[in-house]
Amino acid sequence: MPLMTPPDSVGIVSPTTHHFDQALTLANGRTLDSYDIVYETYGKLNAAKDNAVLICHALSGHHHAAGFHSLDDKRPGWWDNYIGPTKAIDTNRFFVISVNNLGGCHGSTGPTSINPATQKAWGSDFPTLRVRDWVESQKRLADALDIQQWAAVVGGSLGGMQAMRWSLEYPERVRHCVTIASAMKLTAQNIAFNETARQAITADPEFSNGHYLANNTLPAQGLSIARMIGHITYLSGDGMKQKFGRDLRSGTFEKGVDEPLEFEIESYLRYQGNAFSTSFDANTYILMTRALDYFDLAREYNDDPVAAFSHAQCQFLVVSFTSDWRFSPERSQEITNALIHAKKRVTYAEIESEFGHDAFLIKNDRYTEIFSSYMKNISLNNENISQKTIEEPTCV
Amino acid sequence: MPLMTPPDSVGIVSPTTHHFDQALTLANGRTLDSYDIVYETYGKLNAAKDNAVLICHALSGHHHAAGFHSLDDKRPGWWDNYIGPTKAIDTNRFFVISVNNLGGCHGSTGPTSINPATQKAWGSDFPTLRVRDWVESQKRLADALDIQQWAAVVGGSLGGMQAMRWSLEYPERVRHCVTIASAMKLTAQNIAFNETARQAITADPEFSNGHYLANNTLPAQGLSIARMIGHITYLSGDGMKQKFGRDLRSGTFEKGVDEPLEFEIESYLRYQGNAFSTSFDANTYILMTRALDYFDLAREYNDDPVAAFSHAQCQFLVVSFTSDWRFSPERSQEITNALIHAKKRVTYAEIESEFGHDAFLIKNDRYTEIFSSYMKNISLNNENISQKTIEEPTCV
Repeated sequence: MPLMTPPDSVGIVSPTTHHFDQALTLANGRTLDSYDIVYETYGKLNAAKDNAVLICHALSGHHHAAGFHSLDDKRPGWWDNYIGPTKAIDTNRFFVISVNNLGGCHGSTGPTSINPATQKAWGSDFPTLRVRDWVESQKRLADALDIQQWAAVVGGSLGGMQAMRWSLEYPERVRHCVTIASAMKLTAQNIAFNETARQAITADPEFSNGHYLANNTLPAQGLSIARMIGHITYLSGDGMKQKFGRDLRSGTFEKGVDEPLEFEIESYLRYQGNAFSTSFDANTYILMTRALDYFDLAREYNDDPVAAFSHAQCQFLVVSFTSDWRFSPERSQEITNALIHAKKRVTYAEIESEFGHDAFLIKNDRYTEIFSSYMKNISLNNENISQKTIEEPTCV
Repeated sequence: MPLMTPPDSVGIVSPTTHHFDQALTLANGRTLDSYDIVYETYGKLNAAKDNAVLICHALSGHHHAAGFHSLDDKRPGWWDNYIGPTKAIDTNRFFVISVNNLGGCHGSTGPTSINPATQKAWGSDFPTLRVRDWVESQKRLADALDIQQWAAVVGGSLGGMQAMRWSLEYPERVRHCVTIASAMKLTAQNIAFNETARQAITADPEFSNGHYLANNTLPAQGLSIARMIGHITYLSGDGMKQKFGRDLRSGTFEKGVDEPLEFEIESYLRYQGNAFSTSFDANTYILMTRALDYFDLAREYNDDPVAAFSHAQCQFLVVSFTSDWRFSPERSQEITNALIHAKKRVTYAEIESEFGHDAFLIKNDRYTEIFSSYMKNISLNNENISQKTIEEPTCV
């Protein structure tokens, strides 16, 4: 147990729950009469209220993005590498708000919450959500906190989709949009992996048609397999080779010995799957992967991403990672090209990394440098900012 | 129902079962006292008995590689594109033998066979097999058929591993080794996909610890998910994009409509998974994926593939496909480079294809041309062969 948190940490933090009584009509026409949103904040809102940054989380993320809940915590929040005093999202300058999305399983209203109509857990009866529903619920939180304009909306992967949607739905309320390792829509291959993961969950008899909480069962094996599929695809082949190769955890290849073999990679994946299966909600996993699959930035703009982005008023930072094959650099280049053709200001950086899609979470000097430079260039009221430049941005 | 088979087909064929009474000691030290091998033959063995070609199958393959079992068959054998009169493996010249591997589920002794010790299906008690066990059992079949030397041993994927192992175990009995879309050993990522598929099978309660036949259950859902994982990874991202994109099979993205959506790719994958789950044996799937994982060509040659291949006496054709990401061209280049350094004669071709790993099964002009040219160059006794050359081979 450390005696204190590191100097560049936001320190000990605790979440806040905001209850919304105003009914929310969702994209699919259904309505949530009331709901809770859990969030954390880091840094201080300035007098001009122009330094607020919204963090949007990805598939298995939540509101605890930085700092520690207690000195006993083994690990800080999921994006602690990039949020904190002097870090890329510098909490000495910015007031950071990190939410748990509606439909999540970390405190915001979702499938594990009580359905007022039945007084049982919603389970699979919880409405299907779209990315725009999250934007709408986040906008209401902004209203409640009297934040009229975000200095930046920032997210990786599914979080990047939310950031892009914000720039189109509420253009006047976003000054900067940072979209990392994301895409304007998923490929068929991505949908295929998500669907296989969902099948693994729903095939588990303990899934009980999504009412496992009411039935006192838990589709742990199905969720574990879903996580294994996800995990493989969020790493890169080279990264796995370097970390695990063909190392054996137990057994031997020796001839004449009949002993079960286990590769290190097998053991690692099973461990990851098991850990996830008891800490995450299966219905939330299904809901989040569906939101990923359904997202299509330009669908209602005649499938023209340039027409879509023409509605944005903010500046953009787009980041991708060389070894990310689920949200490949090509996808980020498509975003960047559409922004250029829509005559928006955009900085694009493709970062060398062996960590696949997970790279957006991991410490990386070049990524830090570009992310920090971009964020430093965001001007705030009452700051006497000398001219800052982004060094050598990699632009398409 | 066609009235006749196509002129370049081997026509109506039927399998033969060979029973072996001589005990076979396996790589893991266990022994099979007796066993059956099912095989098909196409073409005729010549008087010199030097025109025999062995076809080794991949993960879900079997002995029925070409022709039809009856005029009612909707589809011919799995490699009918490349085996037949005037095809790459020209049955006017070659006598082709295609086996169902030991441990398979199409007639050769395997987990669905009766274990003499218990008089019940072997199930998961069937011994774990290595690629070398297949080579040994195939060698015994060659002995039984009085084939002292194969004109060629040919295989794709796991079949290519068998072909390479043949060239090292019985170098004097192989004149040509054709290894297509294969590798000297699997990567950690490949093992990870295989392990996730196995987990999906064993997590299915109907797997019954591998004794589902004895228990009258069937792990169809687990095997279906395993197949879905495999299927995604045997296709390419681009191929899926072209074939399915984000097309919807049912439902709508329209706002205000609460209707379940189904993408075409989801429906396709589920169909493939379901079809496979009732036509293939789950224990065989586990056994075959383990054999893939365990294969490591150079392990017992101090991990030096050049030292390994120095034992080979045959010539090699190595083929890879540009969009194959599970057995990428890089893996085939490693084979080719090792062969070159071992001073073996090798032709390497990287074929442009969008069909991923499955490309090795699919019609492709360039692949046909190179494969045919190579096979035509194999000289047989009593043939007056004019000088043939392989046109523009792509060599490393």
